[in-house]
Amino acid sequence: MNQALTDLQKRDVKHIWHPCSQMKDYEAFPPIVIKKGQGVWLYDEHDRRYLDAVSSWWVNLFGHANPRISRALSEQAFTLEHTIFANFTHEPAIKVAEKLSALAPEGLHKVFFADNGSSAIEVALKMSFQYHMQTGKTKKKRFLALTDAYHGETIGALSVGGVELYNEVYKPLLLDTVRAKGPDCYRCPFHKEPASCNAPCSRFIEDQLKEHHEEITAVIIEPLIQAAAGMKMYPPIYLQRLRALCSQYDVHLIADEIAVGFGRTGTLFACEQAGISPDFMCLSKGLTGGYLPLSAVLTTDQIYQAFYDDYGTMKAFLHSHSYSGNTLACRVALEVLTMFEEEQVIAMIQQKGERMRELATAAFHEAPYVGEYRQVGLVGAIELVANRKTKEPFPSEERIGYQIYQRALAHGLLIRPLGNVLYFMPPYIISDEEMIFMIETTKETIEQFFQDRRVTVE
Amino acid sequence: MNQALTDLQKRDVKHIWHPCSQMKDYEAFPPIVIKKGQGVWLYDEHDRRYLDAVSSWWVNLFGHANPRISRALSEQAFTLEHTIFANFTHEPAIKVAEKLSALAPEGLHKVFFADNGSSAIEVALKMSFQYHMQTGKTKKKRFLALTDAYHGETIGALSVGGVELYNEVYKPLLLDTVRAKGPDCYRCPFHKEPASCNAPCSRFIEDQLKEHHEEITAVIIEPLIQAAAGMKMYPPIYLQRLRALCSQYDVHLIADEIAVGFGRTGTLFACEQAGISPDFMCLSKGLTGGYLPLSAVLTTDQIYQAFYDDYGTMKAFLHSHSYSGNTLACRVALEVLTMFEEEQVIAMIQQKGERMRELATAAFHEAPYVGEYRQVGLVGAIELVANRKTKEPFPSEERIGYQIYQRALAHGLLIRPLGNVLYFMPPYIISDEEMIFMIETTKETIEQFFQDRRVTVE
Ligand SMILES: Cc1ncc(COP(=O)(O)O)c(C=O)c1O
Ligand SMILES: Cc1ncc(COP(=O)(O)O)c(C=O)c1O
Repeated sequence: MNQALTDLQKRDVKHIWHPCSQMKDYEAFPPIVIKKGQGVWLYDEHDRRYLDAVSSWWVNLFGHANPRISRALSEQAFTLEHTIFANFTHEPAIKVAEKLSALAPEGLHKVFFADNGSSAIEVALKMSFQYHMQTGKTKKKRFLALTDAYHGETIGALSVGGVELYNEVYKPLLLDTVRAKGPDCYRCPFHKEPASCNAPCSRFIEDQLKEHHEEITAVIIEPLIQAAAGMKMYPPIYLQRLRALCSQYDVHLIADEIAVGFGRTGTLFACEQAGISPDFMCLSKGLTGGYLPLSAVLTTDQIYQAFYDDYGTMKAFLHSHSYSGNTLACRVALEVLTMFEEEQVIAMIQQKGERMRELATAAFHEAPYVGEYRQVGLVGAIELVANRKTKEPFPSEERIGYQIYQRALAHGLLIRPLGNVLYFMPPYIISDEEMIFMIETTKETIEQFFQDRRVTVE
Repeated sequence: MNQALTDLQKRDVKHIWHPCSQMKDYEAFPPIVIKKGQGVWLYDEHDRRYLDAVSSWWVNLFGHANPRISRALSEQAFTLEHTIFANFTHEPAIKVAEKLSALAPEGLHKVFFADNGSSAIEVALKMSFQYHMQTGKTKKKRFLALTDAYHGETIGALSVGGVELYNEVYKPLLLDTVRAKGPDCYRCPFHKEPASCNAPCSRFIEDQLKEHHEEITAVIIEPLIQAAAGMKMYPPIYLQRLRALCSQYDVHLIADEIAVGFGRTGTLFACEQAGISPDFMCLSKGLTGGYLPLSAVLTTDQIYQAFYDDYGTMKAFLHSHSYSGNTLACRVALEVLTMFEEEQVIAMIQQKGERMRELATAAFHEAPYVGEYRQVGLVGAIELVANRKTKEPFPSEERIGYQIYQRALAHGLLIRPLGNVLYFMPPYIISDEEMIFMIETTKETIEQFFQDRRVTVE
């Protein structure tokens, strides 16, 4: 990628500080200027296209510039773009709230809107805390979260996150979260297989709850997949255990379905696979099909009631964002939810998931350096390791994943990795041909990379 | 408002938990269902219209469903709705970043995007903190903020906020912010007049900086108007003092222009009136003309450089949001910024500001219970007091502002108050006729309210 920068690339690096980036990396690897999107494809300024295998950070469901969604958005823009959402409301928000409440696990009948995933997490944390303050459990001032958890970047959300990469430097600013070791199926300390396991690792949470439950207001978890940690997957039984423990110890369960919600795991919500209802469910990303920032926190009537009183009691939940309940974003979410109803999306995800498993298993099950290929729904992950037997990871300084990502881009495939985990999380509308291209290109790129590396290393 | 609820109203309160609301209030005062917006007007399901005098929480600039902005949004939706923003970019973001950097106070050349105001504040706080960690000032772990400050609702943003109403219950979760008494011009402890004052009250900040500067990373402030506290206004000299103090004591200055940016105070940014450059400037709300959540943090090359290094040094700013640099929102922001260039908006704001001052002064300068009418740019505020001489406030339990707000709605005017402060912050495209309606209706509603109240009280 040592070609001269285009005018737009020069202007970009002059002024834009990109998210989750060491900007110095952009010297050798300048930002790709996208002009147009269509289906699973992003087109750059030279009309080169890239298959968006990560759904642009796990947000896109039905393809880029989806005509149906764009039409709905456009119509809404000429009617009502936004209105203050305190004392005011609008039909798109009402319908989205109704649909979410009908589709969600049992009991989650109240919907609070915010603008992004991190803000939804903050809402859930604050609600849980305030609930306990207002119901006499005033010792409950801490949260319990897992190692390798990721819940966002604002200080509250970061405080419950457990990925050191993101929060290490900020430690002095963060809340004192109770941390329990999470499930780690690929390197299971109990030597279990996910399919037959009874989640003995839930005891790490149990131990912490036993010791700290009086001061814990909520446990927060990413159901089925700890996504940012490298698509670490674990079986539903773990969630069942956790739900039982939360009830037993009188702490809330916050299910962060921001990454896994809306069909990603093969069911509309990941919690369904465990048959559990959390006390709070946080949604974002796919909620608008990858169009616009919008998030929602669903909770129970019981929790709502603890805030419902005469104004003078000062029990209200006064959280707000300027764009709370944004009409445009709600209208898009409404279209997305309607598509789920009309287009049998869940069946399609399951069927494409099977096909992806078939293709990926064939491609990777014997590949050197692939420690594991794992999959849930339409999320597939390749964990690269230096040694398949010992599962010894590559040293992170080598940035193996990052290098393969760069090479794959040159072949028209966007698979931005998480450390040394490459993953597939394509838009649901991916065709069979496109899926084959995605898997094959990944396979070839990995092979070529390690071949070249061997030459260099030897 | 004791009429039967409409179907949509019933469905709303069944499922939606509204922001910044005691939901029990909605029993007597059900949510108004907005169907359509046009210019300064919002239309409900009965085709009753309301003049949106608060620009829907200070976000709208050019009217609801503005055809020019809606066209731009619509076109973008059919081309590219969104793309991952790490290593990828697009023309709308590049152009917005360029324009912001050109328009902002000197030295702010780097632009980091986020989704809402609160997240922008979190970005600035984290950047300032990490900057100091990476430049050897590792004692700098606290922020300094003013009493009556408001910076948003996520835990970091709430920690620097100083309005007890919003953060009191969450105290155990909040950062230990150094608090300095802010300016209070209406009840000035130094008995100064804003026009001639030399900001002796800046000494409260100075005292705190003197004592704590070694542990303070940044001072955060709302320039010229502490908005959520009740549109408390103070003169530019205070900001000049503060800028000098921050430089003297080696702490960053974060200007939260989320509410005041984009022309509200009569200049594009409020900092301009003081002729100062902050180290960070946070923008949101008006950035998209009231269409979509988007925020930006502007900062200096010097700060950017402290994060710019080889990847392995782990100095990168790894903050991200899924929808960072959202293409649709950036396209809307680009249109808004282009309108500022093409339509002489600042001159229009100044001229309408003068007219509003003229009308409001005539309407309120002798009104009983109006302690003060104050104004900067197109923000006008009426502070209601029980006694004009002693400036004794009404007890907050009486909810005087709230009651007047309800009555004004019945007359087609939306002036959601802040406690007992009613304010005007209309879209910039308000016509003279509409402005007269806004002021006259407010005057009549206040008069009628106190007349009725006198009858009840006596
Ligand atoms: C599980 C989970 N929670 C929360 C978030 C934060 O959402 P956002 O990036 O919109 O702030 C993410 C984003 O990647 C996530 O994956
Ligand atoms: C000065 C100021 N800062 C920050 C915020 C928070 O922005 P948001 O509501 O988009 O989170 C607001 C919102 O009202 C504000 O007025």
